[in-house]
Amino acid sequence: DTVGLKVKRLMCVGADRSVNTQADYDYDRPLMKTQVPGPRSKELTKQMGQIQNNTAINFFCNYEESRGNFLVDVDGNRMLDVYTQIASIPIGYNHPALLKVVSDPNNASAFVNRPALGILPPESFVDKLTEGLLTVAPKGLNRVQNMACGSCSNENAYKAMFIWYRNKERGTSIPSDADLSSCMINQVGGGGGGGGGHQAHCCLATTHSKPIHKLDVPSFDWPIAPFPRLQYPLDEHVRENAQEEARCLEETEDLIVKWRHKGMPVAGVVIEPIQAEGGDNHASAAFFISLRKIASKHGCAFHVDEVQTGGGATGRFWAHEHWGAEDPADIVSFSKKLLTGGFFYRDEMETDKPYRIFNTWMGDPSKNLLLAEVLNVIRQENLLAEVTRTGKALLGGLYELQAKYPNLLSRARGQGTFCAIDVCKASVRDKLILQARDNGVILGGCGDLSIRFRPALIFKEHHVHMFLNVFSDLLAAHK
Amino acid sequence: DTVGLKVKRLMCVGADRSVNTQADYDYDRPLMKTQVPGPRSKELTKQMGQIQNNTAINFFCNYEESRGNFLVDVDGNRMLDVYTQIASIPIGYNHPALLKVVSDPNNASAFVNRPALGILPPESFVDKLTEGLLTVAPKGLNRVQNMACGSCSNENAYKAMFIWYRNKERGTSIPSDADLSSCMINQVGGGGGGGGGHQAHCCLATTHSKPIHKLDVPSFDWPIAPFPRLQYPLDEHVRENAQEEARCLEETEDLIVKWRHKGMPVAGVVIEPIQAEGGDNHASAAFFISLRKIASKHGCAFHVDEVQTGGGATGRFWAHEHWGAEDPADIVSFSKKLLTGGFFYRDEMETDKPYRIFNTWMGDPSKNLLLAEVLNVIRQENLLAEVTRTGKALLGGLYELQAKYPNLLSRARGQGTFCAIDVCKASVRDKLILQARDNGVILGGCGDLSIRFRPALIFKEHHVHMFLNVFSDLLAAHK
Repeated sequence: DTVGLKVKRLMCVGADRSVNTQADYDYDRPLMKTQVPGPRSKELTKQMGQIQNNTAINFFCNYEESRGNFLVDVDGNRMLDVYTQIASIPIGYNHPALLKVVSDPNNASAFVNRPALGILPPESFVDKLTEGLLTVAPKGLNRVQNMACGSCSNENAYKAMFIWYRNKERGTSIPSDADLSSCMINQVGGGGGGGGGHQAHCCLATTHSKPIHKLDVPSFDWPIAPFPRLQYPLDEHVRENAQEEARCLEETEDLIVKWRHKGMPVAGVVIEPIQAEGGDNHASAAFFISLRKIASKHGCAFHVDEVQTGGGATGRFWAHEHWGAEDPADIVSFSKKLLTGGFFYRDEMETDKPYRIFNTWMGDPSKNLLLAEVLNVIRQENLLAEVTRTGKALLGGLYELQAKYPNLLSRARGQGTFCAIDVCKASVRDKLILQARDNGVILGGCGDLSIRFRPALIFKEHHVHMFLNVFSDLLAAHK
Repeated sequence: DTVGLKVKRLMCVGADRSVNTQADYDYDRPLMKTQVPGPRSKELTKQMGQIQNNTAINFFCNYEESRGNFLVDVDGNRMLDVYTQIASIPIGYNHPALLKVVSDPNNASAFVNRPALGILPPESFVDKLTEGLLTVAPKGLNRVQNMACGSCSNENAYKAMFIWYRNKERGTSIPSDADLSSCMINQVGGGGGGGGGHQAHCCLATTHSKPIHKLDVPSFDWPIAPFPRLQYPLDEHVRENAQEEARCLEETEDLIVKWRHKGMPVAGVVIEPIQAEGGDNHASAAFFISLRKIASKHGCAFHVDEVQTGGGATGRFWAHEHWGAEDPADIVSFSKKLLTGGFFYRDEMETDKPYRIFNTWMGDPSKNLLLAEVLNVIRQENLLAEVTRTGKALLGGLYELQAKYPNLLSRARGQGTFCAIDVCKASVRDKLILQARDNGVILGGCGDLSIRFRPALIFKEHHVHMFLNVFSDLLAAHK
């Protein structure tokens, strides 16, 4: 059958180009036994439907058998994973270094005694932060707050900005009695404003995703500025792109001024270095640096959301490092590849009182243990340089394919292996993703028309070729 | 010195009453070497201050050396823990059953390969839910959504209620084009309402804590109904308490009607079975059942927040079981003692589309593994019955103390070991908590004047007496 044939070709390609440095634990090729989801996945998905919503489930996985860049499903299919749990597996499945962390009896306590980190941290916690997270602190941000997941990280980063902004506004961190009592009735205190809640602060939320994520759920009257919609390749459209970026910057500044005039000053500007869920939109270093300047000019904090971009996939540990800015951010949030959530922040964003940024767990020290090991592996194996090399091969391959199939593909773009390409229609995009999966390659979509590439940091050039081989066959066969 | 003397007395008491079923791994008494925080804790706290806010830190812990009901700090002090990481350690520190889960090589994969559970769950996940969480599903709630932490659990439970309510309002789960586009500009779609955001839905948030948690942070214009402020012991103030509860029920219904008239219908009513952070306020079963009826009458979902009360500390697995209601809730959220966050929900609260309740991790299967073992231990050791017995001893002891020290103590109250007592002044309360700690007993505060008791489920009668002994000495010495 076709599935079998494809796999055979993949085997050859994989073998030809084998330069696998994870030879001891990674697989060397996909191996497909059924379509995906196979019968066992279908059965489990049905069972899951009895318990919770199962409509987003792709298939069920055998994580025990998964290795390196290859995810194995419950029907015995082994697939090259170019999506890695929505960009959240840093160094592949079952990395020996991480298994060692878990099997070390000295670490057992960290896994079974989850502390309330904000009040009773473990003895080693400061050292683990110093040897772990702080070794990758963004420029100028000396402080870090751990959190359990990506949404808590961003929510609490917003809180930190609001608190910083209000302290700045009132000229003191000591709230008035009126502030303290009004906040308990769900009004943001201060400013003398009456009326409904939340009148004093706003935040520029630039992250877009699909409407289904936001529908029916209350939201704040916070201005949303446009993210530049550039033409790719960037270096062939310098002038048009500069105009588009100038338009977005101007509109952002207008919104900040407009909201201030409404009596709702903007406390912070939030942006992703690559707008990810919204369709992998890039912008120039000059755009980000100008945006940061606009934020500063208007007294707003500048929050770079690196939940998806952080952790090395762009070839730098943080995507914002590509800007070359002296003073890139006031706050940088993270999660996913860092295994723990949290945010780095500038000294002056520190709250001066207890319990302002607080919840029971505030992270999980067992994740910090694993992260420290991930960072070691990144350094020892020089993975950022590897990602840059691999990313060039990937983006080069995408350029070639879009040149060959201009009616199907466009807008190939990327930094490191954090790449994307657009497909002519959503239905074709979705079909290609499913076909790739049946042929042993897991891809993800984002935005309306994009395929996004989110491999682990151990994804090598020969894996790029495995993917390109499958994908070009699908494109050739597309009618 | 006094610390030493106290410890000696404790040692005797501990030895006298030893009926410890955790003899193989629990300590039998506190052992104090320094005041708390000791020099090592102080040094680490200072170091932590270079990295993040350290103003809430009590002391640093040696979790490796902690056992059962005893938390050991970095200065070698061993304390009876009646607070357990803000009520989040279910069966004590380093329980052998949990250590076994971590050391089992078959489980290693669950700790190192954190999946995106909503799209790629592990093979065993349905079974783990069935054998774990679903065995403790509240009455009438057949479905469960796992989440990473308590705040995500409540936030997503709110989302589920909003979605359910809007689908009900519009008579279909298919949103209009206007709904889909308006939600992307931060307005809640539908209803034809213009103007600012979030006009269509509200939620009755009844959880109160300290203003410092809410200050400066934007909030919604959601009505907050009063939680009954009862007199204790409950059975001696039946008539006054019934009046107070009737007042609160009436005001709640008024608020629901008032907000509907404002064009902002209430989608759900949220309540804790014991209002915990707000000061351990109790209410009668009749109150909760009436509140649930009011919610139903007005078409609101009824969400019981068991993040703090769930997991057995009240002597039932869920505190709401004490109501004896046939139909207690539409949604029950949990976290803390369950090690994973999440919420149970009724079939009709299920969303029909993918990605409406969604984030990258949506929990952590390694926590489900540990939870399954916790539930086994609760059953094998019959811990709910034990908690009931221990709780009677604790509350009895508190009654005796408040009878003896009526100027210092009042309002002793509790269910199981989920107990509290009020102290005459906040400063005295805070001082007693610190003194108890220096004498080997960790307590926590809540509300303005309360001490709350949150021991693990393995807290036995002899531990109650250890605490009472220390506490009554402190009260006797109080000037």
